[in-house]
Amino acid sequence: MHQVYFTPGPSALYYTVEGHIKNALKSYVPSISHRSKQFEEIYAHTIDQLRQLLNVPDDFEIYFTGSATEIWERLIQNCVEQSSYHLVNGSFSKRFYQMSGELGRNTALLEVAPGLGFKPSEINIPEAAELIAVTQNETSTGVAQPLEDIYALKEKHPDKILAVDAVSALPYIDIDFNRIDAIYFSVQKGFGLPAGLGVWVMNGRCVEKAKSMQQSGHSIGSYHSIPSFASKAVKNQTPETPNVLGIYLLGKVAEDMLTKGIVQIRRETEYKAALLYNLLENHSLLAPFVAETAHRSKTVIVATTSVASEKIIKQASQRGMVIGSGYGAFKSEHVRIANFPTHSKEQFEMLVDFLADYSEE
Amino acid sequence: MHQVYFTPGPSALYYTVEGHIKNALKSYVPSISHRSKQFEEIYAHTIDQLRQLLNVPDDFEIYFTGSATEIWERLIQNCVEQSSYHLVNGSFSKRFYQMSGELGRNTALLEVAPGLGFKPSEINIPEAAELIAVTQNETSTGVAQPLEDIYALKEKHPDKILAVDAVSALPYIDIDFNRIDAIYFSVQKGFGLPAGLGVWVMNGRCVEKAKSMQQSGHSIGSYHSIPSFASKAVKNQTPETPNVLGIYLLGKVAEDMLTKGIVQIRRETEYKAALLYNLLENHSLLAPFVAETAHRSKTVIVATTSVASEKIIKQASQRGMVIGSGYGAFKSEHVRIANFPTHSKEQFEMLVDFLADYSEE
Repeated sequence: MHQVYFTPGPSALYYTVEGHIKNALKSYVPSISHRSKQFEEIYAHTIDQLRQLLNVPDDFEIYFTGSATEIWERLIQNCVEQSSYHLVNGSFSKRFYQMSGELGRNTALLEVAPGLGFKPSEINIPEAAELIAVTQNETSTGVAQPLEDIYALKEKHPDKILAVDAVSALPYIDIDFNRIDAIYFSVQKGFGLPAGLGVWVMNGRCVEKAKSMQQSGHSIGSYHSIPSFASKAVKNQTPETPNVLGIYLLGKVAEDMLTKGIVQIRRETEYKAALLYNLLENHSLLAPFVAETAHRSKTVIVATTSVASEKIIKQASQRGMVIGSGYGAFKSEHVRIANFPTHSKEQFEMLVDFLADYSEE
Repeated sequence: MHQVYFTPGPSALYYTVEGHIKNALKSYVPSISHRSKQFEEIYAHTIDQLRQLLNVPDDFEIYFTGSATEIWERLIQNCVEQSSYHLVNGSFSKRFYQMSGELGRNTALLEVAPGLGFKPSEINIPEAAELIAVTQNETSTGVAQPLEDIYALKEKHPDKILAVDAVSALPYIDIDFNRIDAIYFSVQKGFGLPAGLGVWVMNGRCVEKAKSMQQSGHSIGSYHSIPSFASKAVKNQTPETPNVLGIYLLGKVAEDMLTKGIVQIRRETEYKAALLYNLLENHSLLAPFVAETAHRSKTVIVATTSVASEKIIKQASQRGMVIGSGYGAFKSEHVRIANFPTHSKEQFEMLVDFLADYSEE
């Protein structure tokens, strides 16, 4: 049966991906050497399309990892000598915080209850923190932190590295790169690609920090240290044999999104989000989990359910729509719905109609 | 134009992969959650098929990384407190040796010239070494170390962890797992899959070593430490969102290889290797790079060329055959030819016929 995946990641493939995979197979993309001219052209194309789509300045580097989870580890290894600071409001920001501790760093955090965002006035960042970790969009709870709040952290702490987790937010959010230091995402969410690739965008301050740590004798890892990435990126290559097909597909999808227009994609995302939140606010069995309007994610929409979420998920699936359960402890009390560029207005209207009609029999 | 990739990795896709990708798209494999029952079934199937194909005992674990390069790093982080020992006879074994140093370990090595293997009598492993790194099949030079020599190292040093790089050798080599501690490969070589997945097989000694290092306060990494892998593997899951499509395809290809029969695959590999080495020994412009017969790889066959290798590569390509250049400094002096399970006898005969007829115009 035809199914539309509204799960928050992995999610539905971007609607052009299947065609691109077929073309990739026809032109032997999975067989070419990662040290060949052909690969270098694919790499350069993907970087170029990403730069255009996300408006990434020339003085930012873009590197590929196996996952966004890997980027958490590499960020700590390369940019934190001793101390990191984390704004924690869900399972993924919490995991990043824990990881820094596992890697032997001193950690500090401000934790708020699930479903809440942060009030800038309550954030006190210790002097010692070298890196501020902010999750712009928490995939586990559907909380988004307004970009202006994030920029304000950087203004207040220009000496610290501000790293933004935008795993399930890009390409929707329109980032001002001059007001952050690093941002990262994985491709199986907003870009609608098969999982297995993380994308890390960073400025020269991150590069300098890694180099200075290396020079003063700290271990910053090996093949995926920032200097190792840099030494290969100048040749449009990667340190290891990478997910070549993933890099190829990312470039093609970024190109398709540019053709459609990022402004149009953002407008549609807002239309679809408004449609769903409007329904949730007026539903007898469902309600937005995030109370504060300004903190509601446009791309991962979480609803509390006054019936077991499994029932709703099952009925949706019978109509050809796959929606996500709650994360962790919220499994039965929430549904999570992705609103990514691949989800059309028509698909969203269908989903909203289904939810509007949903009632316990 | 139809091209057969004989490059040593990435190489030609296994001949069933295209069909499996189509089925994966039809059944939404790239969209399913990595925490779902469906994923757990895919994961369990792949592990099961690999165990059968490679005859992996139950007391060995199998974990997935982004690449074999990543496994080098994880091996050092998890299994080497202070010192590692490396048998170096090419670019890849050298890189692993360097990586251990970059990660702050003491390293020792025995290095031989490219094209040579190791004489067991010349190997003296320092008492302090906790891990012995052997590259069974050097993809850069086409040198293979006989398995009996590798087992002898373990017999002589039962207290050390013996880690075997079989990146471009599996599934051809028939490993006796009771005589090694860890082995690893990447899927874009012998398994004929798109790159972006490494496979790490290890016994309880590796697991215990990682745990004891962790307990004594060493950093063993974070999400891809052995205990982190283990905590998810019991549920047929992975720590991060993995390359789900890659894991699915690996299981399908391993199943296809089991259906064909691993004995048959090994027999064909030997037949094709004999065909090519026989030609090289009697060619006016080409010769086997590895002089010692016992050290000649069956899966990556390297020839010295008395004309610039680019000329041969170009002519081959015009006939629909892509062969690899020499690695690094040998770029123009060598050709490298993969002999993987996907390469049929007919394709190999065609290649041998082309090389037999090749002469400078």
